[in-house]
Amino acid sequence: MDASEPRRRRVLIVGGGFGGLKAAKSLRGVDVDVTIVDRENHHLFQPLLYQVATASLSPGSIAVPIRGVLGREPNVSVVLGEIVGADLERRRAKLRDGTELEYDWMIVACGARTSYFGHDEWAAHAHGLKDLRDAIRIRERVLLAFEEAERATDEATRRRLLTFVVVGGGPTGVEMAGAISELGRQVLVGDYKRIAPSDVRVLLVERADRVLTPFDRDLSYSAADQLRELGVELRFGTSVASVREGAIELVHDGVTETIAAEVVVWGAGVEPVPLAKALGVALDRRGRIRVDGSCAALGQAEVFAIGDVAAFVPEGETEALPGVAPVAMQQGRFVAEQIARDLRRLPRKTFRYVDKGIMATIGRSRAVVQGGVKLTGLLAWLAWCFIHVLYLIGFRNRFIVMFNWFWSYVTFKRGARLITARYDRAPDALPPPLAPRSSLPPPAPAASPSTSTNS
Amino acid sequence: MDASEPRRRRVLIVGGGFGGLKAAKSLRGVDVDVTIVDRENHHLFQPLLYQVATASLSPGSIAVPIRGVLGREPNVSVVLGEIVGADLERRRAKLRDGTELEYDWMIVACGARTSYFGHDEWAAHAHGLKDLRDAIRIRERVLLAFEEAERATDEATRRRLLTFVVVGGGPTGVEMAGAISELGRQVLVGDYKRIAPSDVRVLLVERADRVLTPFDRDLSYSAADQLRELGVELRFGTSVASVREGAIELVHDGVTETIAAEVVVWGAGVEPVPLAKALGVALDRRGRIRVDGSCAALGQAEVFAIGDVAAFVPEGETEALPGVAPVAMQQGRFVAEQIARDLRRLPRKTFRYVDKGIMATIGRSRAVVQGGVKLTGLLAWLAWCFIHVLYLIGFRNRFIVMFNWFWSYVTFKRGARLITARYDRAPDALPPPLAPRSSLPPPAPAASPSTSTNS
Repeated sequence: MDASEPRRRRVLIVGGGFGGLKAAKSLRGVDVDVTIVDRENHHLFQPLLYQVATASLSPGSIAVPIRGVLGREPNVSVVLGEIVGADLERRRAKLRDGTELEYDWMIVACGARTSYFGHDEWAAHAHGLKDLRDAIRIRERVLLAFEEAERATDEATRRRLLTFVVVGGGPTGVEMAGAISELGRQVLVGDYKRIAPSDVRVLLVERADRVLTPFDRDLSYSAADQLRELGVELRFGTSVASVREGAIELVHDGVTETIAAEVVVWGAGVEPVPLAKALGVALDRRGRIRVDGSCAALGQAEVFAIGDVAAFVPEGETEALPGVAPVAMQQGRFVAEQIARDLRRLPRKTFRYVDKGIMATIGRSRAVVQGGVKLTGLLAWLAWCFIHVLYLIGFRNRFIVMFNWFWSYVTFKRGARLITARYDRAPDALPPPLAPRSSLPPPAPAASPSTSTNS
Repeated sequence: MDASEPRRRRVLIVGGGFGGLKAAKSLRGVDVDVTIVDRENHHLFQPLLYQVATASLSPGSIAVPIRGVLGREPNVSVVLGEIVGADLERRRAKLRDGTELEYDWMIVACGARTSYFGHDEWAAHAHGLKDLRDAIRIRERVLLAFEEAERATDEATRRRLLTFVVVGGGPTGVEMAGAISELGRQVLVGDYKRIAPSDVRVLLVERADRVLTPFDRDLSYSAADQLRELGVELRFGTSVASVREGAIELVHDGVTETIAAEVVVWGAGVEPVPLAKALGVALDRRGRIRVDGSCAALGQAEVFAIGDVAAFVPEGETEALPGVAPVAMQQGRFVAEQIARDLRRLPRKTFRYVDKGIMATIGRSRAVVQGGVKLTGLLAWLAWCFIHVLYLIGFRNRFIVMFNWFWSYVTFKRGARLITARYDRAPDALPPPLAPRSSLPPPAPAASPSTSTNS
């Protein structure tokens, strides 16, 4: 660029989730250079992640390369990497490999990760569900549990293998409990000669007295009934005392019970990713970035924070907006607009969330919807399907997802029952995971032996 | 079973590939109990594996759970495990976990694995392509190379990152070279602002003087021309002296040349899986099980060996049948028939391979077919598509594969551009690979931390 020309202003977007992607798209036509950084090469449609975890959808059906979505926008650069901190004074963000990226505005949209509330040691045995790796891991654990149960001769072992515990009665927990129960009791059993539907036990553990607490009570109760119809045991007023390999300890009314369970899924909570803290801005009690009415971090007008990583408290209210996709998307569009206003030296507006309602699915033909109307059962499920397919980015994925759903519905089959990461061989023959790679300079050699046997 | 009843006879099938699956299906209605054992839970449509490696297809599109195919057959049991040896005298095969499986007939159909011809140390840097893990690994390496090249500032680094070397001019090598070149030069470049099609260099290395040696010379030459049209550099009469991280050493006419290349794909050869040797039966020079006219191991009438693990030399010929799917499938059907004949005390027949021709694809609208007729280019490609879709097991996969192909053809996009195993974080945060699991008793704890950040 000619030095005499005024430098074009730069927007750095951290995270290619719902908020970041919407912000980048909304900056189309605005006179800025946009750089979007994500640790993953793909945008993930998280609301359907549980369907990958329960073998209904392939990972590719709910993920699109960020580059494929934004790479051809003339003012957008896509960087695969992780922002680990920033010098807010000098307006430079730092990638893990040490590279610095200058910005005039930064949009922090890096989301949340699974939280074990201080018990990180549970992570090894209670599987969170936040990215494709998590989902593929759960899928493998569930499918392997069935394989092992089919061959188990000892009744206690068999019972442990066929007991699945889901912690947390929010949307993720409800979806997972319903989907695992469906998978186990309706889909898989036909393929296993020694497993009966009644052998499969799915527990949903919730500390409160009902599932889906953001919903009205009648819908919570309907969701609970729908879960019971699917064979899910509900444990309300129950908390987790410990999780270890093959077992989880539950506490209810001061009484501790140990449940032998091969697979434990953790949907009990999330926390902001570590970057939120690393930025040195004001955080709320739950570690989220506190923001003003324009979604900017307190005292940092050029640092926006949107989506799950931010705590936006609407005027006159005490609770921050929930960590759902519509909030992130509306905020993404909003902050792009504020940047355009800043450029034209117009005052910023105040963000207002338009709540179009909430929905959660429980299983085939089972869901709850709370918006302008309240729906339950088949109608709610159809509404849920419609909205989710509509929002899935890109025609191709939309089409394949619809086809898979239709197919599962008609045949009760699951199309994505793959175990790919599993190695049934001596430990020394295990290939190492891909080595972490910094993007520049080229990383140290990563061993990836390619010999493989197929028996 | 009542002790007075005669025991039902048992068939053990080792391997759920083309041969094993066909054998199991062909034993439907035969008065035997069939057990099929495979290390993987899925049957893999290997001819399309290169399309997973080059981001055209999702893993789920070319794999079906073996249980889904055979689980409902009344006389078939499916076991996820690995047969590591057998006592042929006592007719017992041994699983890795020590469990023994008795049999009256064993069908060894466990296939081949990548061979580095004694240079196993190359495996870490030259990626074979035999299972889904291999394919996903190659896909990630290729996509990451592009990501890193986009940000590379040093020209030598950039050149290394965008140089892809494929070793072996057989069908796998030709398909991979063509597909990587298409992916790099036609599909990806549009998404990368700093990479031009001409920056992407794909070399195909072959020791012989042409590609696809099983084909007639005119078709080989056509294939070579079609590869060159896609921008692939062909290196004939060239062998590999060494492979190390980021570089491969080639030898041609005694002259050694070192090529800096980030990704090396190894399609140069296969060898039988170790079980072939462990059985203690007669092997041929290449380690394959030598079989008689009835596909039984020499001197072991009740041990059949079919597909890539066997060397079936037709009467009057000197070369064994090639390691292709049609041979395995025809042999699978044949040995099932011989077992039925054994039951009725009829003499066994001699296997005759019906060669319906061979085909290889080079890229979009590019292929060669040699059968009753010879075809090249678009017509050959359409024939290739037709046959492969036809053989893909299960309507669902067939439909999705067709749709993906059509979509890629129309839009030049690739639908499966996912990097899932990659971790852009500190090594200590890397989740360990899934621990190897024996099926019984329950295995030692396997750590799988589920915390994950998404930036």
